[in-house]
Amino acid sequence: MKRALELAALGVRGANPLVGAVVLSADGRILGEGHHRGAGTPHAEPAALAETLRRGNDPRDSTVVVTLEPCNHTGRTAPCTQVLREAGVRRVVYAVHDVHGVAAGGAQHLREAGIECVGGPGAAAARMLNERWTAALAGRRPFVTAKSAQSLDGRVAAPDGSSRWITGDRAREDGHRLRRLADAVLVGSGTLLADDPRLTARQPDAESVPRGRSALRVVMGMTPVPERAAMRGPGFVQLATRDVGAALNTLYEQGVRHLLVEGGPRITSAFLRAGAVDELFSYVAPLILGDGAPAFPDLGAESLTDGLRWIPDDAGGPRLLEFGADVRLHLRPPGPQGS
Amino acid sequence: MKRALELAALGVRGANPLVGAVVLSADGRILGEGHHRGAGTPHAEPAALAETLRRGNDPRDSTVVVTLEPCNHTGRTAPCTQVLREAGVRRVVYAVHDVHGVAAGGAQHLREAGIECVGGPGAAAARMLNERWTAALAGRRPFVTAKSAQSLDGRVAAPDGSSRWITGDRAREDGHRLRRLADAVLVGSGTLLADDPRLTARQPDAESVPRGRSALRVVMGMTPVPERAAMRGPGFVQLATRDVGAALNTLYEQGVRHLLVEGGPRITSAFLRAGAVDELFSYVAPLILGDGAPAFPDLGAESLTDGLRWIPDDAGGPRLLEFGADVRLHLRPPGPQGS
Ligand SMILES: NC(=O)c1ccc[n+]([C@@H]2O[C@H](COP(=O)([O-])OP(=O)(O)OC[C@H]3O[C@@H](n4cnc5c(N)ncnc54)[C@H](OP(=O)(O)O)[C@@H]3O)[C@@H](O)[C@H]2O)c1
Ligand SMILES: NC(=O)c1ccc[n+]([C@@H]2O[C@H](COP(=O)([O-])OP(=O)(O)OC[C@H]3O[C@@H](n4cnc5c(N)ncnc54)[C@H](OP(=O)(O)O)[C@@H]3O)[C@@H](O)[C@H]2O)c1
Repeated sequence: MKRALELAALGVRGANPLVGAVVLSADGRILGEGHHRGAGTPHAEPAALAETLRRGNDPRDSTVVVTLEPCNHTGRTAPCTQVLREAGVRRVVYAVHDVHGVAAGGAQHLREAGIECVGGPGAAAARMLNERWTAALAGRRPFVTAKSAQSLDGRVAAPDGSSRWITGDRAREDGHRLRRLADAVLVGSGTLLADDPRLTARQPDAESVPRGRSALRVVMGMTPVPERAAMRGPGFVQLATRDVGAALNTLYEQGVRHLLVEGGPRITSAFLRAGAVDELFSYVAPLILGDGAPAFPDLGAESLTDGLRWIPDDAGGPRLLEFGADVRLHLRPPGPQGS
Repeated sequence: MKRALELAALGVRGANPLVGAVVLSADGRILGEGHHRGAGTPHAEPAALAETLRRGNDPRDSTVVVTLEPCNHTGRTAPCTQVLREAGVRRVVYAVHDVHGVAAGGAQHLREAGIECVGGPGAAAARMLNERWTAALAGRRPFVTAKSAQSLDGRVAAPDGSSRWITGDRAREDGHRLRRLADAVLVGSGTLLADDPRLTARQPDAESVPRGRSALRVVMGMTPVPERAAMRGPGFVQLATRDVGAALNTLYEQGVRHLLVEGGPRITSAFLRAGAVDELFSYVAPLILGDGAPAFPDLGAESLTDGLRWIPDDAGGPRLLEFGADVRLHLRPPGPQGS
């Protein structure tokens, strides 16, 4: 189970929880491993079973150890219960129950099919791994990833407004990868007016996550959106509000389970103030501007203890990565240990 | 020579250049390796020879490959020419001449002692490695390391002035390690008045560099220093000037070859404006303040292209390190490739 939890942490956060699975032989050897790589890709159990076959191992009569109760529901992929049955698995050990309405009941289903099923080991750690994800969806709002690119001294633009580009190609490509993982990508009116972004995910690469549909492109703010804005087109949404809670609610109702907030700084700060950022990717370029628009304005910390002390996040992406000369910090909000 | 250059980069910048050495047997096997770890510690050649003996190898009739001409001068350590002779080395291959007045002439001395001596291979790379160091000393000023600790959004203090502590214990310990490497540690009047620091190097650890003397503690600025300032005592210097060039000149004349500038932000910016920072260690805490004193004020960049685009520095310390939740970026100024 420890290994399954490690594997789970390798996944990417998004519309689905982080899940890892290990296939074990009767004498306890590892036959295959897998983790869920994001919405639209195989769940951890089928991934681990596929890896078992790829290694030339036989999954029949094996034990599958998985961090989440196998799903019993046909979503973008076949139900895991069916895959486990068809592979001839003898026993399933899972950490936590699936609370997701339609997908729940997997253990019950497996038992009826004659597969031994044990729940509970590693439950605390597995719950922690998806704590923020579970809390967001329990609150009927999307899981929110915020992304920000800044100079070393915390600026997103120079005093004259120039902001292209602070970070290099490789960091920007990684930003596009984040877009491909989300159900919706959001900016504030300020960014729409300043940059007229398209917000589509360019530069697919080998890591690209196959998706049935592309993300919604959302602008938030009261300012009317120009007719010729590059964001317009199918999948474009304006949220004419300044209320973060209302915006999240609307997006959730439109089926958005994973939202990427791309700024600008005032929108990002609004989400931070609302306590609605579940993870932050901060790209830092080794550039010193000395002045210019701050990355996190309007937060109103008076003293050091009022500041938001974020925590390096190892789950759903490494805590620290280099992209050329730039670094990417992956952070989770202050709060209970775990994820 | 490639390996010797790699070893050299492992050293720490300071009053001495980065040097690496490899001891080779007649048939080209590596018998020992070494690099210079900073002023007061063995030079690269004696370090490599000591390592050769430690591995149970015989340095007699070996070839020593070193990135800098062996010194011929008794400083804090014995002359390397003598050490090489006494070890029975047959041949020395070095990359660049030693231009340091008193230490020069090593190759000549070795030849007279019957040791074959070849200069030149890898000269360009070896020169690059110590380019900034050589330029600083050729300009009769100390090599300048700047250190700064900031929040993710580039603040060194909260709006109410609180600044203790932004980074954690482990990052601060590393800052003390930097102090132990320098001949002098400098702050501006502002920091003296705000924090009344002692500027001594506490928390020695296993990596501690043995030193014959401790660093000068320097304050720069016109403001009279209070009688009871914690910095006062032996080794305290006030530079009553606002001219960076004059300050560097005075320190050089007092024997300072490696200066650590610890801030505050206005002093650091003054050194940056004067083009007098040779390397920067920036400690970044995952703290978001939103407001407060900027880490690099008064630089006057108007547009993105006016900004100072620094470059990750792999020589004299890794480009990126983690200290608990904090990260340390090691950067060199924009300019010609290499170090
Ligand atoms: N480096 C980066 O990561 C990055 C990313 C994006 C943008 N940028 C740069 O950021 C700059 C634009 O930033 P910005 O801060 O002006 O624009 P912004 O954050 O994109 O948008 C701010 C606007 O959003 C609307 N809004 C909606 N709800 C809000 C709320 N709760 N609080 C505050 N505003 C709310 C308001 O417009 P209404 O009046 O319409 O309601 C407000 O003026 C541009 O220079 C752009 O290039 C940088
Ligand atoms: N996080 C960090 O890394 C760090 C490090 C140190 C300090 N700090 C914080 O920084 C704050 C103090 O910063 P600060 O910027 O006010 O003080 P500072 O940079 O330490 O000192 C500024 C003073 O230095 C003198 N000075 C001498 N030459 C100068 C020049 N060329 N340009 C500008 N000033 C020159 C001036 O004083 P005269 O009028 O006397 O000439 C000036 O007022 C404190 O809150 C401290 O806690 C943070």
